[in-house]
Amino acid sequence: MPVGTLGTVKSLSPEELMEAGAQIILGNTYHLYLRPGCEVIEQFSGLHRFMNWSRPILTDSGGFQIFSLARLSKISENGATFQSHIDGSTHLLTPEKSVQIQISLGSDIIMCLDQCLPYPAEKQSAREALALTTRWARRCKDFWSCQTRKGNLLFGIVQGGMFSDLRSESVEDLVAIDFDGYAVGGLSVGEPKDLMLEMAAVTLPQLPADKPRYVMGVGTPEDLVNLVALGADMFDCVLPTRNARNGQLFTSSGTINISNACFKLDSEPIETGCSCYTCRHYSKAYLRHLYLAKELLAYRFNTIHNVHFFLDLMRRMRMSICNGNFESFKKDFFNKRA
Amino acid sequence: MPVGTLGTVKSLSPEELMEAGAQIILGNTYHLYLRPGCEVIEQFSGLHRFMNWSRPILTDSGGFQIFSLARLSKISENGATFQSHIDGSTHLLTPEKSVQIQISLGSDIIMCLDQCLPYPAEKQSAREALALTTRWARRCKDFWSCQTRKGNLLFGIVQGGMFSDLRSESVEDLVAIDFDGYAVGGLSVGEPKDLMLEMAAVTLPQLPADKPRYVMGVGTPEDLVNLVALGADMFDCVLPTRNARNGQLFTSSGTINISNACFKLDSEPIETGCSCYTCRHYSKAYLRHLYLAKELLAYRFNTIHNVHFFLDLMRRMRMSICNGNFESFKKDFFNKRA
Repeated sequence: MPVGTLGTVKSLSPEELMEAGAQIILGNTYHLYLRPGCEVIEQFSGLHRFMNWSRPILTDSGGFQIFSLARLSKISENGATFQSHIDGSTHLLTPEKSVQIQISLGSDIIMCLDQCLPYPAEKQSAREALALTTRWARRCKDFWSCQTRKGNLLFGIVQGGMFSDLRSESVEDLVAIDFDGYAVGGLSVGEPKDLMLEMAAVTLPQLPADKPRYVMGVGTPEDLVNLVALGADMFDCVLPTRNARNGQLFTSSGTINISNACFKLDSEPIETGCSCYTCRHYSKAYLRHLYLAKELLAYRFNTIHNVHFFLDLMRRMRMSICNGNFESFKKDFFNKRA
Repeated sequence: MPVGTLGTVKSLSPEELMEAGAQIILGNTYHLYLRPGCEVIEQFSGLHRFMNWSRPILTDSGGFQIFSLARLSKISENGATFQSHIDGSTHLLTPEKSVQIQISLGSDIIMCLDQCLPYPAEKQSAREALALTTRWARRCKDFWSCQTRKGNLLFGIVQGGMFSDLRSESVEDLVAIDFDGYAVGGLSVGEPKDLMLEMAAVTLPQLPADKPRYVMGVGTPEDLVNLVALGADMFDCVLPTRNARNGQLFTSSGTINISNACFKLDSEPIETGCSCYTCRHYSKAYLRHLYLAKELLAYRFNTIHNVHFFLDLMRRMRMSICNGNFESFKKDFFNKRA
């Protein structure tokens, strides 16, 4: 899922997202709640019409941003109190309010409010955060079940820090509540890559095989392939969009920085054979020129390519799974990228 | 002509320019010569393929930017010596070199190197600048005539400051050399609006009626209508694109600033009935949100509308002239904009 923090996947129009094959995008509850605010988005009966996006939207719960962006966040049984990173105003986000906001955003997939810990965290803290996450998940489910407005799905979020037994406990608790899908949260928060994969390897196979499994906030192309191998179905990450704006472009043979002097006279596209709009029409020399001149088109054309690359990688993995040759796809992928 | 300073009309793709009805765009010789440099653009046999634009391109001579942007510019009979505003490197631009660069950019309409004075200027200075401009125009024509690569046109530029007799003298000199079209330069350089229109009124009717008449660096929608009434055919100006990036949007009933709080919940497009992509899909509330959040899409969607507005204004003027009702069009335009 390309990330559309503020009701826009940075620099891309909805048509460009669809051309890249985006089936669903992510919106950030914390950001949209603060700016432009629910009052504005409700005027349009939700985010879809506001931003002219007709395909599904998944919204996060706001929890992760409260812990990472807001000032003076404070957790209680009731919810999370925080000060806006924009104007310092104080807000209380309860599990019920998070679901309520996501419903008013017109979200198609609603995420439960969870408590995400930084890395490293003590086992006792992880145990308590997991228990609170479970109680909040229950409250989210109860509140969501009472709403008349339906057609959306509710996903639970597995926590448990970097402790295998706590991860298993979290899975068990959430599956007992019964959600439409399950996310693995609390990864990619600063831990070593091996540990991230280890925790995913512990968690993913325990989740119901007939429900979507979503690894939040991940990751590099390598991460995606490794995690799909472990059973992951969905991801969100700012990597393709943010790195595009920093001149980093992904290709099947590695990642390049478009500002590199070696591209000065390079009349080839970013990746030969790539079917994205950028590769069909523009050379590395032109993209390098736009990037060095800080032209707005640089960010857009780079983003088109990177989003296409990530979505195409997922498409190719799906196809290889359907065709029963995922293992050889994976081997080939790592060989080429190395 | 939308202005594409650095090989891109800021934030717009070629497809968006074509959808807005752009028949021709302007490229800046001074900017492109310094960055990315002719070596890069020649690799693509010109600007068209480099930037993926298949319709005509007019390039200015570089003269105006040397006087307004470069450090330590110095005029001699031979040409203009200047230091790059980017890296301080020293360059000499002669009339021949300006034409040569424009040819290597693959320009369809090449402008003669001229000396543009700031406002106010003494009559003696204006007289000398005009005489030099005429001698340079002759050298440009001579050099251009000797080039084997053709298919492009060469335009002369009328100077003469704010002095009617000098303007007439300049017209006479240039027409004697015989160009494919004529530009009125040295306007919109800080003089009062009335004086700009007065000088245009003196100059335009003296130019050959069967050649394009181009007023450089102008202007507001009102300027365009007033100048078309005086016989102008072509314009270039950064106003629609630059103002779009500053949140200023043009409509037939006036100019609005999209950041205004009154648009917070406004679900209407910038202009009802406008057929541009932005107005067909987005509300003022969404555009205000994007703009306040400094989202890249804000600059793009605003630019799409403003460029469409200016090109549509020119289209409507052309049609009213063909239909013989330009005067009533003009009256109606000023009534609505007031």
